Amino acid sequence: MTSQDLSRYCEDVAKRAKLAAAALVQVSDSAKNMWLKKSAERLRQQSDVILQANEKDIQAAPEFGLTDAQIDRLRLNSERIDSIAGALEQIAMLPSPIGRIIDSSVRPNGLRIDKVRVPLGVVFFIYESRPNVTADAAAICMKSGNAVILRGGKEAAHSSQAIVDILAQVATECGLPADAVQLVATRDRAAVGHFLKLDQCIDVAIPRGGEGLIRRVTSEATMPVIKHFDGNCHVYVDAAADLDKALQIVVNSKCQRMGVCNAAESLVLHQAIAAAFLPKLAEAFQPFQIEMRGDAAARTILDSIQPATDEDFAAEYLGPIISIKIVSSLDEAINHINHYSSGHTEAIVTNDLQASQQFTNRIDSSAVMVNASTRFNDGGEFGLGAEIGISTDKFHARGPCGIDELTSYKYVVHGDGQIR
Amino acid sequence: MTSQDLSRYCEDVAKRAKLAAAALVQVSDSAKNMWLKKSAERLRQQSDVILQANEKDIQAAPEFGLTDAQIDRLRLNSERIDSIAGALEQIAMLPSPIGRIIDSSVRPNGLRIDKVRVPLGVVFFIYESRPNVTADAAAICMKSGNAVILRGGKEAAHSSQAIVDILAQVATECGLPADAVQLVATRDRAAVGHFLKLDQCIDVAIPRGGEGLIRRVTSEATMPVIKHFDGNCHVYVDAAADLDKALQIVVNSKCQRMGVCNAAESLVLHQAIAAAFLPKLAEAFQPFQIEMRGDAAARTILDSIQPATDEDFAAEYLGPIISIKIVSSLDEAINHINHYSSGHTEAIVTNDLQASQQFTNRIDSSAVMVNASTRFNDGGEFGLGAEIGISTDKFHARGPCGIDELTSYKYVVHGDGQIR
Repeated sequence: MTSQDLSRYCEDVAKRAKLAAAALVQVSDSAKNMWLKKSAERLRQQSDVILQANEKDIQAAPEFGLTDAQIDRLRLNSERIDSIAGALEQIAMLPSPIGRIIDSSVRPNGLRIDKVRVPLGVVFFIYESRPNVTADAAAICMKSGNAVILRGGKEAAHSSQAIVDILAQVATECGLPADAVQLVATRDRAAVGHFLKLDQCIDVAIPRGGEGLIRRVTSEATMPVIKHFDGNCHVYVDAAADLDKALQIVVNSKCQRMGVCNAAESLVLHQAIAAAFLPKLAEAFQPFQIEMRGDAAARTILDSIQPATDEDFAAEYLGPIISIKIVSSLDEAINHINHYSSGHTEAIVTNDLQASQQFTNRIDSSAVMVNASTRFNDGGEFGLGAEIGISTDKFHARGPCGIDELTSYKYVVHGDGQIR
Repeated sequence: MTSQDLSRYCEDVAKRAKLAAAALVQVSDSAKNMWLKKSAERLRQQSDVILQANEKDIQAAPEFGLTDAQIDRLRLNSERIDSIAGALEQIAMLPSPIGRIIDSSVRPNGLRIDKVRVPLGVVFFIYESRPNVTADAAAICMKSGNAVILRGGKEAAHSSQAIVDILAQVATECGLPADAVQLVATRDRAAVGHFLKLDQCIDVAIPRGGEGLIRRVTSEATMPVIKHFDGNCHVYVDAAADLDKALQIVVNSKCQRMGVCNAAESLVLHQAIAAAFLPKLAEAFQPFQIEMRGDAAARTILDSIQPATDEDFAAEYLGPIISIKIVSSLDEAINHINHYSSGHTEAIVTNDLQASQQFTNRIDSSAVMVNASTRFNDGGEFGLGAEIGISTDKFHARGPCGIDELTSYKYVVHGDGQIR
C-alpha cells in the first residue's frame, strides 16, 4: 500500500467503526449475549480452520525471531480454543453496564436527574502476540457497547484473522453491525500512527505490550489513552505482622508467577522483625532460586544478600530477583514505597489496625492489599469478569479495566416543562 | 525572567504542588471546611485589600483592550466579594468525596474489595478574566483533596493575587499546606507550555476559555485534559409536543442568557407541528429580537425566516440568532442533531413516551433533557454544588465537573493471609 492508500484505508476502518458504534446503541444486551454465545459455539465448531491459520503463524514464527516460550504462547490447540470460547460465554453472563442508572436525584424544581452509563464509542486496541486476546478484547468491547479496531501483533496475524472472521460473521447473523469488530488488515507499522490521529472517530486508545509501545502510543495519540505501565510492586512487612502469614504472602507475591505485572519486586521490612524474618525468607526462596538484593541493614543480617542499588529499588525484574529495604518506621516505609513504586500494587502485612489504615490511606497505587498477596490485583480476582488491561493511570480508569471501565455516562433529565 | 529561569520557576511550583497534594491526603475534611469558612470570613474582612488590588486591574484594563462588558465582569465590590465568600461557605457544606467507598464486594475467598475515592493529585487550571473563578477553583480543588496551580488571566492578576494570598495565609493557619493553592506569578505566556510538560507532577490540566486556548492546551499537554468546548445545543419539538410548553422551553433555552454554552442555538421541528408552532414562536421571540434562519420548509411557513446554511446549523451563535430545521420523523431529528451537535446539551419536547426514550437513548450528548430547558445543564442545577467547568469529553468526566469529577479511586483489599 502507498502511504496515501494506507491513510485512506485507516480512515475508512475508523469511519466504519464509528457508524457501527452508533448502530450498537440500539442493540439490546440479549442480542450481544447471543452473539457471544453463538461465537463461542462457532469457534469450537470451526477449530480446524483456526488451527490451520495458527499453523501458518507458528511456521512464520522463527522469521520474527520468537523464542520457544513465545511460540508456545502463540500455539493454539483444541483445549485452548475451548478456553477462548469459554471466556466469551462468561462475558455473556455479566450484567450489562449500558443504560444502568449510576446516580439519580430529584431537584427541588421537580427535575429528575439520572446519570446513565453509555459506551465510550470506538476503542482502538493495540496488543502483542497471543491470539486469545483478540477474542477477549472483542467480547469486552462489544459487551460494553463499543466498536473495536483491533491491531494485533504480526506474529498472530493469521490466527487473529480467523477468529475475527468468525466473530464478524456471527455478528451479522445476530443483527449486530459486522464493522463493530475489525482487525487491521495491514502489517504496516505506520497504520498505528494514522489511527492515532483519528480522534474524530476513535474515543480511546488502549496499548497493551512493552513500555516502548505504550510510550509511542501516548506521545502520538490525539485521543485519550488507557496506559498499562510496569508494576514495581512492594510488600511491606510491618513490626506487628504475623510472620508466618508474611512469609506466605511474600513468597506468593514474588514466586507464584514471576513474569507478570502484579508480582512483587521489592520487599520492605520493619527493623523490629527483619532479623527474625530474613533467614526464614531466604530458606523459603531457595526452591525458587530467588536472588536477594538488600540495603546495608539487610546485609548485616544475612551474608548471602547482595548489595542493592538505587536502580534495584526502581526495577521491575519480572524474574527471580527481589530488592530488600529495612525501615525504622511505617512512615519511612510509606515514603520509600511512594517514591519507588510505579503505582500498581502494594501490600502490607500487619495486625495493627492503625498501621493498615495509614498504609491504605497514604499509599498512592491502584490497589493496596492488607494481609493478602499482590497477585490479587486482577480483573478476574476482583470480580469484574474479563479485563482488557490494568491501568496505571489515575484518570478515568485505575487498576483492572473491565466492561464498566469502557463506559462513559450521560445525564438524562426528565421534566414537565421546567424553565429557568 | 530568562527562559531557563522560567522553566525552573515552573518546575519548582509544580514540585511544591505535588508535595502539597501528598500532604493533603492526611488532612481531614473538617480541616478543609475550616479553611473554607475562615477564608470566607477573611475575604469579607479584607475586602479593602481586595478592592485596592482590583482597582489596579480596572485601571490597567484599557491597556489590555477590554470592552466595557468585560471590565464590568472584572470589577469587584463588597457585594461581589460577599458572593465569592458565600460560594466557599457552600462548598464547605458539601459532603467530602474523599475516602467514600463507591463499590464494595466480598470475594469467594473472603477478600473484601473496596473501591475508594481518592484525589487526582495536582490540577493545573488555566482560565480567563473573572476573579471569582480564582476562589471557586481553589475551593473545589482543595475540597476534593487536590492541590491546584492557578493560571489566571493577566487582566485579573492583582485581584487574583490578593485572593490567593488570603487563601494561602488561612491555609497555613488551618494546618493545610500553603502550596496547595498557588497562583502562577509570571504573565509570560511560555509558562503554560512549561507546565503542560510536567506530567510527573501534574495529574490533569483544565483549560477554561476560548476554543483557541483549549486547542493549544490539548495539543501541548502531556497529562490528561478536561476539555470544555462549545455548546451547539438543540431543542427538538416533537409531533406529540405540548406546544405551550414547547414555546416556553424554546424561548427559555434561547433567550434567558444568550452568551452561555447551554443556551439553545438550533431548533428542530417535526413537520406535523411546524406550521402551528413557528408563527407563535416568531411572536414570542420578538421582544428578544431573535433572528430566525431556517431551511426551505421553514421559510415556506414564515416569510420572515432567513435562509440557513450548513454553517448555521453548525454554529454556536452565543447571541440573538437561531437556526431552524424541519424534519419528517424523530429518526431524522436524531440524525440531524447527532451530526451537527457539539455533544453538550439537547432537549426534546414531547408527550410520547417512546419518542422520549428513543431520543434519550440515541442522542450522544452530555445531557439530554425531556420537557425541560437546555439551560439546566449546570453543576448548581444538577445539585453538584460548585463546578469547575462542563466537560464535552466522554472520557473520565462528562458534563458539569464538580468535586467528584476531580477524584480518582483506588482498590483497598482486606484479607487474612490470602494467597493465590
